[in-house]
Amino acid sequence: MDSWTALKMDSWTQVSCPCCRSDQVEPLVLIQLAPDVLPATKKWIISRIEAPEMEGGAQLLAHPGEDVDGDMIVVSASRCTLLRVTEDLGLCKPYKDGNMAAFSYHDRDSFRNVDNMQEFLTSAERQYVVKYELDSLRAEKEQHIPGIPESEGILQARESIFQKLEKLGVVQSVFPLHDKTRLNSLAKSWYSKKHLWGQPLDSINEYFGGTVAFYFSFLDFYTWALVPPALLGLLLTFLLPGGGARAVGGAEGEAEAVPKEDDDDGPSVSGHMVQAVFSMLWSTVVMELWKRRGSSLSYKWGTLHLSERFAEPRPGFHGTVGYSPITDRLEPLFPDWQRKLRVGLVSVPVVVLFLGLVVLGITGFYSGEAMVQGLHASHGTFLTAGLLYVPSLIHILYVNVLGNIYSKVALSLTEWENHREESAFQNHHTAKVLLFSFFNCFAVLFHIAFFKQDLPLLRKRLASLLIVTQLVSQCTEVLVPFLVDHFFSSSEKKLQEDDPEVDHLRSQSALPTFPGLFSEYIELLVQYGYLSLFSCVYPLTAVLLLLNNVTEIRTDAFKICRLFRKPFSAPVANMGVWQAAFEILGFVSVISNCWLLLLSPRVKEFCQEGGFSSRNALLFAILVEHVLIIIKMILSFAIPDEPDWIRIKREEIEFHSLQALNQQKH
Amino acid sequence: MDSWTALKMDSWTQVSCPCCRSDQVEPLVLIQLAPDVLPATKKWIISRIEAPEMEGGAQLLAHPGEDVDGDMIVVSASRCTLLRVTEDLGLCKPYKDGNMAAFSYHDRDSFRNVDNMQEFLTSAERQYVVKYELDSLRAEKEQHIPGIPESEGILQARESIFQKLEKLGVVQSVFPLHDKTRLNSLAKSWYSKKHLWGQPLDSINEYFGGTVAFYFSFLDFYTWALVPPALLGLLLTFLLPGGGARAVGGAEGEAEAVPKEDDDDGPSVSGHMVQAVFSMLWSTVVMELWKRRGSSLSYKWGTLHLSERFAEPRPGFHGTVGYSPITDRLEPLFPDWQRKLRVGLVSVPVVVLFLGLVVLGITGFYSGEAMVQGLHASHGTFLTAGLLYVPSLIHILYVNVLGNIYSKVALSLTEWENHREESAFQNHHTAKVLLFSFFNCFAVLFHIAFFKQDLPLLRKRLASLLIVTQLVSQCTEVLVPFLVDHFFSSSEKKLQEDDPEVDHLRSQSALPTFPGLFSEYIELLVQYGYLSLFSCVYPLTAVLLLLNNVTEIRTDAFKICRLFRKPFSAPVANMGVWQAAFEILGFVSVISNCWLLLLSPRVKEFCQEGGFSSRNALLFAILVEHVLIIIKMILSFAIPDEPDWIRIKREEIEFHSLQALNQQKH
Repeated sequence: MDSWTALKMDSWTQVSCPCCRSDQVEPLVLIQLAPDVLPATKKWIISRIEAPEMEGGAQLLAHPGEDVDGDMIVVSASRCTLLRVTEDLGLCKPYKDGNMAAFSYHDRDSFRNVDNMQEFLTSAERQYVVKYELDSLRAEKEQHIPGIPESEGILQARESIFQKLEKLGVVQSVFPLHDKTRLNSLAKSWYSKKHLWGQPLDSINEYFGGTVAFYFSFLDFYTWALVPPALLGLLLTFLLPGGGARAVGGAEGEAEAVPKEDDDDGPSVSGHMVQAVFSMLWSTVVMELWKRRGSSLSYKWGTLHLSERFAEPRPGFHGTVGYSPITDRLEPLFPDWQRKLRVGLVSVPVVVLFLGLVVLGITGFYSGEAMVQGLHASHGTFLTAGLLYVPSLIHILYVNVLGNIYSKVALSLTEWENHREESAFQNHHTAKVLLFSFFNCFAVLFHIAFFKQDLPLLRKRLASLLIVTQLVSQCTEVLVPFLVDHFFSSSEKKLQEDDPEVDHLRSQSALPTFPGLFSEYIELLVQYGYLSLFSCVYPLTAVLLLLNNVTEIRTDAFKICRLFRKPFSAPVANMGVWQAAFEILGFVSVISNCWLLLLSPRVKEFCQEGGFSSRNALLFAILVEHVLIIIKMILSFAIPDEPDWIRIKREEIEFHSLQALNQQKH
Repeated sequence: MDSWTALKMDSWTQVSCPCCRSDQVEPLVLIQLAPDVLPATKKWIISRIEAPEMEGGAQLLAHPGEDVDGDMIVVSASRCTLLRVTEDLGLCKPYKDGNMAAFSYHDRDSFRNVDNMQEFLTSAERQYVVKYELDSLRAEKEQHIPGIPESEGILQARESIFQKLEKLGVVQSVFPLHDKTRLNSLAKSWYSKKHLWGQPLDSINEYFGGTVAFYFSFLDFYTWALVPPALLGLLLTFLLPGGGARAVGGAEGEAEAVPKEDDDDGPSVSGHMVQAVFSMLWSTVVMELWKRRGSSLSYKWGTLHLSERFAEPRPGFHGTVGYSPITDRLEPLFPDWQRKLRVGLVSVPVVVLFLGLVVLGITGFYSGEAMVQGLHASHGTFLTAGLLYVPSLIHILYVNVLGNIYSKVALSLTEWENHREESAFQNHHTAKVLLFSFFNCFAVLFHIAFFKQDLPLLRKRLASLLIVTQLVSQCTEVLVPFLVDHFFSSSEKKLQEDDPEVDHLRSQSALPTFPGLFSEYIELLVQYGYLSLFSCVYPLTAVLLLLNNVTEIRTDAFKICRLFRKPFSAPVANMGVWQAAFEILGFVSVISNCWLLLLSPRVKEFCQEGGFSSRNALLFAILVEHVLIIIKMILSFAIPDEPDWIRIKREEIEFHSLQALNQQKH
């Protein structure tokens, strides 16, 4: 079934451009208005959406929705608009010679499939084009929005129309529409039992777009990358002579999540060392190989040459309106140094303050616990026994409240920093939240490792974190949504294919918004942290993570396909700031592993037997740390970030644009 | 006097192009042939130089020199050739709106001064264009060079003609000609007593070109940057209470280059720390600011947008001839992975081997010395007293022989790596030699600091190195050349302005070739190493270096102006690998300074008084080291590498080339 034939053709905008005329229009994006919006306002919004670009409109196709309440607008895009924005975004598309080339509207007929928008652009791209055009809608001069009280409905010149409408509550949400047929076929090839190995990455990119596709590609890559450390962990724990028998005891103990009070330290000293050194070098090699993989994907998906810098600024961006010195177009200008000052003098100190509060919380928790335990030991009544739980409860409460405040602060700080590009905004926001989440997760472990220097406790904590958090997250991520889906069941389920299209739209509108990939990424990063920072303490980490990831892929896929509205997804060339986070973690891991090795009782014994002073052992550990860091740096420098063939393609594009520049008369 | 009128006009090639016709031709480059070259060969060479590009020639103007021996060819370039190569090289030139823009031959009339090549291109650029064209001269098909024995004079298809001619000994040298008038006025404004502050950098760039101008800009910048640490050093040594009096004693002792046997350690602990931390952060800030300065210079000098990658490969580059996948032009192709394999599997191990031999030499020297001293102590004859000098002598001999072998090996390894671009070749060669020289200079100091842990000896060594090497280098660099120049005097001195032009040319040909900036840079780098690696041991280092640099600028200027042939200088955008070397040194300095602080008797005393165990002091030092390295990384990340206005200009150029690409029909 071509779902878009269901919205009656005659209600769509008529296109004047001959090349865009079509007997069917694909509904791409739904604008959900508030129920009390006046017809005058709705009409005005539709007129702005439909107006040609020269008159300051978005030049899109609009459909009034034809529902009883009249609170929907369905939006689509004509071929010309799609192609124009494709050029603006700097997407690469297959050229007639089979290579990818930066799309040029002027030269459009040399690109493959340019007559069939369904083939030429991915579903995610077409929908992103609509979002881009809606976001770019700005008031041409100061004007009043019809049907809104005079006091509120004034648009300043160059103000973003949709931002204003959302602020006023007129527009409740703008979201891309699912295409049930395609979604079902994607879901089938993605998380059905038949496809155990690998995921349909190209189809994911086609349907959900770059950000989602990059997440799943990374998850896939990372899961495969876990195989060598998992094998090594198994080998060292179960097969190797030496610490073998003891390690098995330790591993079993931890499998029950209540490890024995053990003074053994897992595998033998040499196994220990091998594991640590391997995991430190492994992390760099994996990230470098991932960069190469990422750049191949980015080439394949046409995002190697994005020109976000030169495109429209994000809607939240504000500044004095003027001519951009770069593109010579009229747009808000905001000096870069001012943004940097805001980041450096306000954002960074505020983030550091919050990190300080996290540390304060931990210190408070420990001193509180010590106090309460002292009290209980000296008095020992029921009351003091109850008091034992108080510090934990207060700490949990404190962490939650702090986390909530911080997430608000981080968002508004990033807004206030006023980034021009969406990707810069995302990266700065992600970096802020990421740092905090990471600190929250690892501060306790670092405290145990570096201050308490209590390795058995660290192992206990790590094992229970790995097992408990995995169980909990799998439950919340799979079971709960599945049950909700099954029993409380959305209205969509009951819809028949031949129900009116409006009901299908309304059922999508009823789904919750996709919460974004942040929590998914942070879960991976925290896992990766357990693995790389503390792996030498607990060699089976990689095995547990591998098991976890295999299910994680499927549950994430199920979630994004079934439980939420489809998210908008900007074309992206890489994972952004997450890439950096993983790499930094790799370097921190060298420090923590060297330190943990130094602390381990086995190494201490070994030193005493060998007659090393503790000072000399420390010096040796520092030497090893520095050498490993240098090797990691050399590795990451020596492994090129993109395969040779991508480099050649990229240089070819650069050469062509140089040639074009030289042949152009200004 | 316009020196180029002196070569008779009618002997120059006649130019067919109407725009290039001129009544005077500027002689740019001299080709010095062997004395026994047959007229047929000379005629053939001139014909290749003069042939139009379409016939595989260099399309330059040639002048047979008109000397009695007939062993000279003077070469110049017509306007069209100059402009065409300017585009090939990707030079930026002032556009009619005053901004710099990548030069485009097609749009040439929109650029300023395009009718006057003397204004439009710098002297160095015009000469480099000639070199570029001569280097690009390749045999179109297998052919025989007239006048050369049949067995030797066969050129393969696509073989570089001038490389072959030099190999055959037909061409002895190709060098750019000095312009006495301009040189004199440059010299006057450069190293005369009137211009104590600052150097005429633009004129240096105009006359000597980018590589030389960047060296002197860096020297200038670095000298100014030495002022703060020099002031701090003076302050800590002479003015601050605490370690003041003692430090003065130490400083005076070292000023005599025979320091007293002192167990004092310079300034007080806190002064010590301040000095060390300051110098560590200073080095990063200086290098970041230099990058900004460098990018401004590169914009001003039109090298922001070089397209070396797309231009002709360097003459030594070889490979199977084919169509480049990037430019689609016929040229030798050599796969990148093969080059990387050669670097990784051969060059790196060989370099490491040589570094190992250096270490072996030092170990041998020390053990030899210990043996000889033992022998002398136990026997104490004249013979053993003489033997005391043997290890030093052998070591000096060993170092020299090793250095000579290494420099040959480094050059041929880099040739064998087969780099396509001249800059890549230079960077790889420089990196190799640099690493070795640096190791040679610092291995002994590191040995004293890290293994012997003997701070007084380190101070002694450092002070004497600073003073002795400066005295020696100033002598060799200034006095010797000056004396040579004055007494043995080149023939140029005696020439009158109205002597035949041929004699002027011959006198330039008699000058030695400029040895390149390598030794100058390495001198700076070694100095910088003394300063940053060991400065906390000897706080007056910066003062001595400052004094040295002030004279260094002048002696270097004198040398390059008076004592050598003019060097060719490629347009460059930065210092290349030297930049990286200075930055890496900055990071190594953190490690060495933290270690030295830990070793210093004052800090040891302080720890004992404070009741710190040596293990805890070590832990603290590691913490400080890590924190400082992280601060340095954040600093170098937070200080943008180019000023905002340059970034905007660069993005403007990128935007224009993107637009041009989009508007172009393929």
